[in-house]
Amino acid sequence: MAHEPAFFRPIGGSEIPRFAGRSTFMRLPQIEDPAEVDIGLVGLPWDSGSTNRVGQRHGPREVRSASTMMRLVHQASRIAPYDLCRVADLGDVPVNPIDLRDTLERVESFYRRIHEAGAAPLTAGGDHLGTLPILRGIAGDQPLAMVQFDSHSDTNDTYFGDNPYTHGTPFRRAIEEGILNPKRVIQVGIRGSLYADTDLDWAHQQGIRVVEIDEYFELGPDRVVQEIHRVVGDAPLYVSFDVDGLDPVYAPGTGTPEIGGYTTAEAQRMLRGLRGLNLVGGDVMEVAPPFDHAGVTALAGATLMFEILCVLANAIHERRAR
Amino acid sequence: MAHEPAFFRPIGGSEIPRFAGRSTFMRLPQIEDPAEVDIGLVGLPWDSGSTNRVGQRHGPREVRSASTMMRLVHQASRIAPYDLCRVADLGDVPVNPIDLRDTLERVESFYRRIHEAGAAPLTAGGDHLGTLPILRGIAGDQPLAMVQFDSHSDTNDTYFGDNPYTHGTPFRRAIEEGILNPKRVIQVGIRGSLYADTDLDWAHQQGIRVVEIDEYFELGPDRVVQEIHRVVGDAPLYVSFDVDGLDPVYAPGTGTPEIGGYTTAEAQRMLRGLRGLNLVGGDVMEVAPPFDHAGVTALAGATLMFEILCVLANAIHERRAR
Amino acid sequence: MAHEPAFFRPIGGSEIPRFAGRSTFMRLPQIEDPAEVDIGLVGLPWDSGSTNRVGQRHGPREVRSASTMMRLVHQASRIAPYDLCRVADLGDVPVNPIDLRDTLERVESFYRRIHEAGAAPLTAGGDHLGTLPILRGIAGDQPLAMVQFDSHSDTNDTYFGDNPYTHGTPFRRAIEEGILNPKRVIQVGIRGSLYADTDLDWAHQQGIRVVEIDEYFELGPDRVVQEIHRVVGDAPLYVSFDVDGLDPVYAPGTGTPEIGGYTTAEAQRMLRGLRGLNLVGGDVMEVAPPFDHAGVTALAGATLMFEILCVLANAIHERRAR
Amino acid sequence: MAHEPAFFRPIGGSEIPRFAGRSTFMRLPQIEDPAEVDIGLVGLPWDSGSTNRVGQRHGPREVRSASTMMRLVHQASRIAPYDLCRVADLGDVPVNPIDLRDTLERVESFYRRIHEAGAAPLTAGGDHLGTLPILRGIAGDQPLAMVQFDSHSDTNDTYFGDNPYTHGTPFRRAIEEGILNPKRVIQVGIRGSLYADTDLDWAHQQGIRVVEIDEYFELGPDRVVQEIHRVVGDAPLYVSFDVDGLDPVYAPGTGTPEIGGYTTAEAQRMLRGLRGLNLVGGDVMEVAPPFDHAGVTALAGATLMFEILCVLANAIHERRAR
Amino acid sequence: MAHEPAFFRPIGGSEIPRFAGRSTFMRLPQIEDPAEVDIGLVGLPWDSGSTNRVGQRHGPREVRSASTMMRLVHQASRIAPYDLCRVADLGDVPVNPIDLRDTLERVESFYRRIHEAGAAPLTAGGDHLGTLPILRGIAGDQPLAMVQFDSHSDTNDTYFGDNPYTHGTPFRRAIEEGILNPKRVIQVGIRGSLYADTDLDWAHQQGIRVVEIDEYFELGPDRVVQEIHRVVGDAPLYVSFDVDGLDPVYAPGTGTPEIGGYTTAEAQRMLRGLRGLNLVGGDVMEVAPPFDHAGVTALAGATLMFEILCVLANAIHERRAR
Amino acid sequence: MAHEPAFFRPIGGSEIPRFAGRSTFMRLPQIEDPAEVDIGLVGLPWDSGSTNRVGQRHGPREVRSASTMMRLVHQASRIAPYDLCRVADLGDVPVNPIDLRDTLERVESFYRRIHEAGAAPLTAGGDHLGTLPILRGIAGDQPLAMVQFDSHSDTNDTYFGDNPYTHGTPFRRAIEEGILNPKRVIQVGIRGSLYADTDLDWAHQQGIRVVEIDEYFELGPDRVVQEIHRVVGDAPLYVSFDVDGLDPVYAPGTGTPEIGGYTTAEAQRMLRGLRGLNLVGGDVMEVAPPFDHAGVTALAGATLMFEILCVLANAIHERRAR
Repeated sequence: MAHEPAFFRPIGGSEIPRFAGRSTFMRLPQIEDPAEVDIGLVGLPWDSGSTNRVGQRHGPREVRSASTMMRLVHQASRIAPYDLCRVADLGDVPVNPIDLRDTLERVESFYRRIHEAGAAPLTAGGDHLGTLPILRGIAGDQPLAMVQFDSHSDTNDTYFGDNPYTHGTPFRRAIEEGILNPKRVIQVGIRGSLYADTDLDWAHQQGIRVVEIDEYFELGPDRVVQEIHRVVGDAPLYVSFDVDGLDPVYAPGTGTPEIGGYTTAEAQRMLRGLRGLNLVGGDVMEVAPPFDHAGVTALAGATLMFEILCVLANAIHERRAR
Repeated sequence: MAHEPAFFRPIGGSEIPRFAGRSTFMRLPQIEDPAEVDIGLVGLPWDSGSTNRVGQRHGPREVRSASTMMRLVHQASRIAPYDLCRVADLGDVPVNPIDLRDTLERVESFYRRIHEAGAAPLTAGGDHLGTLPILRGIAGDQPLAMVQFDSHSDTNDTYFGDNPYTHGTPFRRAIEEGILNPKRVIQVGIRGSLYADTDLDWAHQQGIRVVEIDEYFELGPDRVVQEIHRVVGDAPLYVSFDVDGLDPVYAPGTGTPEIGGYTTAEAQRMLRGLRGLNLVGGDVMEVAPPFDHAGVTALAGATLMFEILCVLANAIHERRAR
Repeated sequence: MAHEPAFFRPIGGSEIPRFAGRSTFMRLPQIEDPAEVDIGLVGLPWDSGSTNRVGQRHGPREVRSASTMMRLVHQASRIAPYDLCRVADLGDVPVNPIDLRDTLERVESFYRRIHEAGAAPLTAGGDHLGTLPILRGIAGDQPLAMVQFDSHSDTNDTYFGDNPYTHGTPFRRAIEEGILNPKRVIQVGIRGSLYADTDLDWAHQQGIRVVEIDEYFELGPDRVVQEIHRVVGDAPLYVSFDVDGLDPVYAPGTGTPEIGGYTTAEAQRMLRGLRGLNLVGGDVMEVAPPFDHAGVTALAGATLMFEILCVLANAIHERRAR
Repeated sequence: MAHEPAFFRPIGGSEIPRFAGRSTFMRLPQIEDPAEVDIGLVGLPWDSGSTNRVGQRHGPREVRSASTMMRLVHQASRIAPYDLCRVADLGDVPVNPIDLRDTLERVESFYRRIHEAGAAPLTAGGDHLGTLPILRGIAGDQPLAMVQFDSHSDTNDTYFGDNPYTHGTPFRRAIEEGILNPKRVIQVGIRGSLYADTDLDWAHQQGIRVVEIDEYFELGPDRVVQEIHRVVGDAPLYVSFDVDGLDPVYAPGTGTPEIGGYTTAEAQRMLRGLRGLNLVGGDVMEVAPPFDHAGVTALAGATLMFEILCVLANAIHERRAR
Repeated sequence: MAHEPAFFRPIGGSEIPRFAGRSTFMRLPQIEDPAEVDIGLVGLPWDSGSTNRVGQRHGPREVRSASTMMRLVHQASRIAPYDLCRVADLGDVPVNPIDLRDTLERVESFYRRIHEAGAAPLTAGGDHLGTLPILRGIAGDQPLAMVQFDSHSDTNDTYFGDNPYTHGTPFRRAIEEGILNPKRVIQVGIRGSLYADTDLDWAHQQGIRVVEIDEYFELGPDRVVQEIHRVVGDAPLYVSFDVDGLDPVYAPGTGTPEIGGYTTAEAQRMLRGLRGLNLVGGDVMEVAPPFDHAGVTALAGATLMFEILCVLANAIHERRAR
Repeated sequence: MAHEPAFFRPIGGSEIPRFAGRSTFMRLPQIEDPAEVDIGLVGLPWDSGSTNRVGQRHGPREVRSASTMMRLVHQASRIAPYDLCRVADLGDVPVNPIDLRDTLERVESFYRRIHEAGAAPLTAGGDHLGTLPILRGIAGDQPLAMVQFDSHSDTNDTYFGDNPYTHGTPFRRAIEEGILNPKRVIQVGIRGSLYADTDLDWAHQQGIRVVEIDEYFELGPDRVVQEIHRVVGDAPLYVSFDVDGLDPVYAPGTGTPEIGGYTTAEAQRMLRGLRGLNLVGGDVMEVAPPFDHAGVTALAGATLMFEILCVLANAIHERRAR
């Protein structure tokens, strides 16, 4: 780390108040070339995979606004991500809101470009289908591990006849395509009434570790973190946080809320627990501002994004140090 | 009209209060077979054509709720639609929210079934792309006339490359397909900044009568009504009301608001002025409840739907009397 | 007017900011004894007569809050009400929210006490049924004239069987009881779909001058004012302003909104036009804060209350001067 | 169970999206004759017993809308209620919003008809006074047991003089009338400041088991469930869930919120714990949509209704199997 | 205009949807050096001058978001501002929210730098006090003319003792300092109750042309435009638009709403009428997002800003052409 | 306590419903002379110290409204504050919203007057800077102890250059001035990302006991209470509750929310645990109604104020008994 000048710094609250100035992720500069960053913060303003409430297309803008409240150093871990990595805002994926298949390709190529530049993406979505083309874009030689915070397994097969692409199917597709290693996938907080009592059979058959919400409450966040470490091991890890994993009172602004989830405090505790794992990217999905109030969901989304940023920056820093 | 018993009556406010009971359009029965009705009220819960804010998929449900406030007789014209025609709620079109092309077909066939049963449809949308498959479904031997209340002409060609189907293109498609006779199309309230000063050239070339908002304010609603009658003549007429034709304060819950529009009172005046024209169907589109407050847009949508219902029922009644 | 000290003054915005301090009507003192005032401002937090949306019980509190924005002198007429009359806040009527008949008596006796003390009441409601016991309380030897701004005539007979007391019946009762002289009653802005085309027959038969909304738009506010003067003459006049007379965008926070009404500017113009008439009291009814946003309806209610206060104070002052 | 065809199935999300189509409880058919069902889902749109904020009359409509998100099988218990019982939407009770006593009778007779048809009612309210006439309607030969989730005991005597009927008195009346056996009544979550330190004396004297919120937090939901089983025994059990038992962040849309309650996750855990008890009916009361945002309270109400439905269906199924 | 490449173009809606991508004014690039622009769009996120409701500090961010809906060409005038001038986003003034006097200086020097670079500023505020340091910054050799759209004259002297700087005093200060020529100042829409009937005396004495709202309604927007041209003449003109000049239904998100104002359509008509005048800058002030809903006020603010931009660009272009 | 008649009683809910009548703290009388009370409830409608979102100036009005729901006796402790002390509403501090330094003096002198009259103040704010002049006003001979519930330590030095007075600095000033004894100060719930990992160094150096949120979750509320007792000892104790100590879902209406806080139930438990300590005053700060919904934050604020009132009244009563 000879050239510290290349590190990017958020605009300080003493230069211009946090409610003012340009609204980029974490008040970082907006950079066009992913080769200039180690971690690229990206907005994925897309909700065409939603079969329920929509409006996640507005998520990135509001998460950006809320993220201007984030300061520089993590309170609990004292990780200072901007001292460890070059982090900047890479803008939004230029989605096509009226053509799902075209956007799948646009997203994939946007992230492939980031991946090929050697950067790790951290995304604010967008509905959860968006994670599929992200994973396609960053897929390398070996399948990825994944920690998925969510109330839904998102491993259904098809909807409305034989449509393979919705916010309920991304991880089935990713496993079928060999991008995810299901034996290194763990889902935390699954709940909500079922279509049939076989809903989770496919996931179980693949070897996904499904922590349904009742088991979650029994274990508590610390033992769930242990379980995450056991499942994931040292595989390259993607973290996907669907805000509907949170209880709806913490994330009313989302597409498919399910009551009876975990708190933001618990989510923070679990995300911090990812320290030491081999993170290669992450996302915070399903923030739907039209159903939010006073920006509570956007603030939760932005803060959880900062949490992931810290463990991701730490992982990159440690890989580099080896 | 021998068998008056076949006429459907809304549930009365003295039977069960208007805020209670089943939530169908106008408190009418929900009927499955369009052959039982003269006018079928339909919900089109679809917003996949939106390139801006979404949520119009929730429009039909909220317009239905608001429509329970509608009583039986029109205050100004004294038209009593349920004494003139058999009117019922035909339910919602079974859309596929993740496949635009599939839904175009589903909508078309839903309306073709209504049309072939001899009924006239009156729809609560949904984004404005939805009007295209409606028109396809009810297209008969001759092209239709259309009165379009809107802030946008919706006659653009393609978006995001060569995508022909968005809420900004339906009427170009309909004219290209010969469903609408552009010389019998009049658009009222067009406004908002332009992509280029050629935006309306195609519409003008086709012969569409475009009443931009400045001309609207100059003419006033009564002379606009005269102009509508002049343009439409006795052609079979479809009425399409995009609520963004209204000023946004009257319809904040919409996808693409443009300030500086007309009032609901003026809209009512114009819709009443359609009496005597040869109506064959209509719609109220672009109600987007996630951006509404206290249901003001849904109430406007429901009331304008009742306005169209009255002139439509009257037209059917008069055609039958001939 | 020797004893000017008895006049009450609102707390000034330079003493304590308008958003702060005690929340009384117009920032006037709260007085218990009506004998100390010429005009008593009263809250009637009651909505048991509502057959549609409720929440008008919260109206007085929010109108009080909004009224702290009112200053001292009317902008257009330069009437300074606190220089003409002793005006104070008499508090809220102690209603019984679970017993309609008991509250009818409580309200009547509250206003009778004001009336017998020689004061004129100006009320913030509350649903429109509340005007009935107010009128009973202030009824003197001769029937009153009334100007009613409203979208509904409120002269229906009974609801839900034979219930005579709802927000849709007060003025039928008042006329039957001889409290109102129907030939001196004028209703402005009546609209909305009808139960039957005979809905207004009773009102017309009594001789009420019903200005339906279409006639209103044709006449305009100035000629409506002339018509008011013609109908009312020099009879003692009560002014009742149901905020649903306004278009719902000006008063979304109300129980039974009907689109297509007048603006607050027009309402102000009409209320100012009451100058010269023989006012003896007034009210602003049907403010329902749960459906309001950012207090726009409460602000409209408070400002219209100030408008009535000015013409009422002027009338009292002129009567005294005679 | 020979005639499975008689069982009713919710409309599937693949037939028509969950945000669309007719808005009945759980997307079940609306049935008029209670004899066709084992469990009748009913709306009780009534709030005349409220002495604080109102708007619960709008509860059933919004809970119906939210209930369209419920799927078929309970996630934790795997109970599939529609495979066990005939369940349908029986519509709303035809209340009279302006006459409390008349509505008490209307509600009672509506539920008596259900009871006499052999069906069990599951209700969405409405303020908590509504539970009294429900209980009167379903009262049989022996007094009922009751589990009451609530922040208020609702065993006060009279209000505003000698009014015996408000949302604060239903269970005193029910006990006085011998409908409830107080020794088999348990109240969970009681809290909020007191009128006097004797407020709960009557309840205690009757033998009601009052679990105040501090005891609740000490015991936790699982031991509360044990206590419920101990108190209730095998008596026929009615479950009444006032959403103000929840912390207000989970149910902001209610009439009398009290901070410091339990979570929806805990409520779900307790409701699931009712399995094995002898349920005969239940309700979810006090959802007041005008104070809700983004439908979080309605969603909580609908989900808790589904929770009760599962244990109620199971109980009926087991009784039938015996 | 040889070097057209220097002109800045908004990002097109076909490159990236309007709800996505970086949120700058009109989707223009953010430029640091004012010498690169002819017109600099600036945010002034400051509300320390407010004596009533606050939150205008959030105005620039939300107006920026809403401004992404603005396209390229004015619908009525066909002015294409980005073809006439170099226009870009200069960012926000680095205000100090806790020190009013310090910020007065910061604002002044920010605008002086723009002025000295030869650029004209167009600002989104911020409370109306902000216009004072803007005027100080751009004051040249001769006093400016000003058109002020507003419900308040803002020419009071002092508040809370002898405080000279609030949102109610800027134009008194500017006139005292010789920055504004009061004989070339016209105020449109003044209304609201008065502190005393002498409130406007100082303004009148200075020679300000005050168009109170009643005169406004009498004249109508076209004759007001004529009056503006008469008063302003060919003096260098600053346009200040306080959104509380609009009726509150068009701008609920503001600090000191006064009912009974003009519509956005009328405002647009008046702003377009400024064509031909010698504009040197302008602002849209008092957008207070915490009181807005669904962004209607922010959208109005952004659109009015585009209106001013068009006439300002035209004026600059014409001066250059001379 | 011979003269019980001097004790003030809240207006009862049976005299006038809780949603009606004058809106004073806890429905107590508004008293001008602090000598008449033992505990003075005060509103501090001021937010000039805020560097983030504002609107706390509206806090006292909304907390007053919500406080009308508070009854007479504490549910858990059975403390009946109005039987122990003379408690009344002393109104709002007459702040100057446009001059921070002037208001610092106004607040200090307002509270000094209370203090010198022998009364203890309990305040509803207002941003947290307000606590500084309160402490200055009530400072006696010995430094105070303080329990601070908060997500921020508020012990920063200066902002925006050398500004010493913001909502992030009050307790540094108070310690520097010798008003607070840092060794008797305990802060509970500190969290949120840091400017630097030295942020809390000054606080630690002074000897403040900082319970960061992770330690809070580890200890739980009961052991935190023990820690409070240990730190505070028998020193005169001031309790300052910043509602952003709560998780934002319990207090969305605040200026600087930080996710991951404690619940209102936990806050209540801790406040009750202050019984036995030597309380001399307290406050509930940072309620910002423009960001609230349905009054949940105001209700939390009012209820926590009642919690503090009970332990404060008890402490005064016990001191008097000694």
